[in-house]
Amino acid sequence: MNIEYVAPAEIEKRSMAIISDELERRGILLPDETADIVKRCIHTTADFDYAETLCFSPGAIAECRRLIRGGALLVTDTNMALAGINKRELERYGARAMCFMSEADVAEEAAARGITRASVSMERAMRREEPVIFVIGNAPTALIALQEQMDLGHYRPAFVIGVPVGFVNVEAAKELILADDIPHIVNRGRKGGSTVAAAICNAILYGMRGQQG
Amino acid sequence: MNIEYVAPAEIEKRSMAIISDELERRGILLPDETADIVKRCIHTTADFDYAETLCFSPGAIAECRRLIRGGALLVTDTNMALAGINKRELERYGARAMCFMSEADVAEEAAARGITRASVSMERAMRREEPVIFVIGNAPTALIALQEQMDLGHYRPAFVIGVPVGFVNVEAAKELILADDIPHIVNRGRKGGSTVAAAICNAILYGMRGQQG
Repeated sequence: MNIEYVAPAEIEKRSMAIISDELERRGILLPDETADIVKRCIHTTADFDYAETLCFSPGAIAECRRLIRGGALLVTDTNMALAGINKRELERYGARAMCFMSEADVAEEAAARGITRASVSMERAMRREEPVIFVIGNAPTALIALQEQMDLGHYRPAFVIGVPVGFVNVEAAKELILADDIPHIVNRGRKGGSTVAAAICNAILYGMRGQQG
Repeated sequence: MNIEYVAPAEIEKRSMAIISDELERRGILLPDETADIVKRCIHTTADFDYAETLCFSPGAIAECRRLIRGGALLVTDTNMALAGINKRELERYGARAMCFMSEADVAEEAAARGITRASVSMERAMRREEPVIFVIGNAPTALIALQEQMDLGHYRPAFVIGVPVGFVNVEAAKELILADDIPHIVNRGRKGGSTVAAAICNAILYGMRGQQG
């Protein structure tokens, strides 16, 4: 294997071409609407499973774009996902991203109530006045906390990006969101993560460049 | 699939038990020295490929611990990896973590020279006086920049965690590090990422708890 100099601006383009070729060789045809999002998840993980497991509610991309253009708040369940989201692109639309996980009293409240910090963080997000896009890359308990409030009729999230990763309640928590009719992008199964969550947000943002508002 | 309440403190323990069981069923026996690191990478990705592809130089874990106890500097190639590393654990040893990718003049210098921001960041890390543990979760160009300076005899990194992800020069860049005799942890192949890089650092830190300095 040899190292070949590739100009920085070409690296991503070349990567995406390799991914497209390999999808074709695998006989996978992605719908136009969602292809860029799926490819960016594969780009971020080098894992082609995402071509089979990413699920989009009808019109998900258009709805997410509409929310971002309206200045929605993205709330993540990890500081890693927050770090990975392109904040400069968000700002073009007056949208923002936040994560409540490290707020001083979140750990305290979670310990006192025997729930996860992610659950407490979601409760704080649900008290926001602006429409919230939930970006969950780590904690299934964040999805469960959301679904509980939906089931009680107390809250409807504007949009859920549900790609937590792991082994305990992860698959079941995703199925809850998939069974609901809220707009969503969910990766079925165990896989996901903060890098995948950020990749989905960034793919949507990059797809909005040069589009009419 | 049903949701089962699991106490927050139990979730990770339960996850690790599931991973251990599944490794056993797959007939994979991990060496004691590195098992915790491999399992945390699987925990972070839900991807059992890591059990087959993570490579450790002889005595890698002991060497990395020694460097951290000596107050080494961890330099990451992404702000995501930096966000994921447990800084409180690092501080117990007087060690620190930094990322130069977002420094104001890095993008400018990279553009002027036609190289990646990651390459420029690595050059800055190589000018540090303290021993540096390179934590590369994204950019193969970061590994290539390191190897170039090694080949010229200008620099020897104290330790390389080399788990960039992707499709352009990623596998070849990792093979360069694997072929060298610097202490390393490298994930062979295309896979890796910022979450994997952070997971490796945290697994090493958690393994140091309660140990003699």
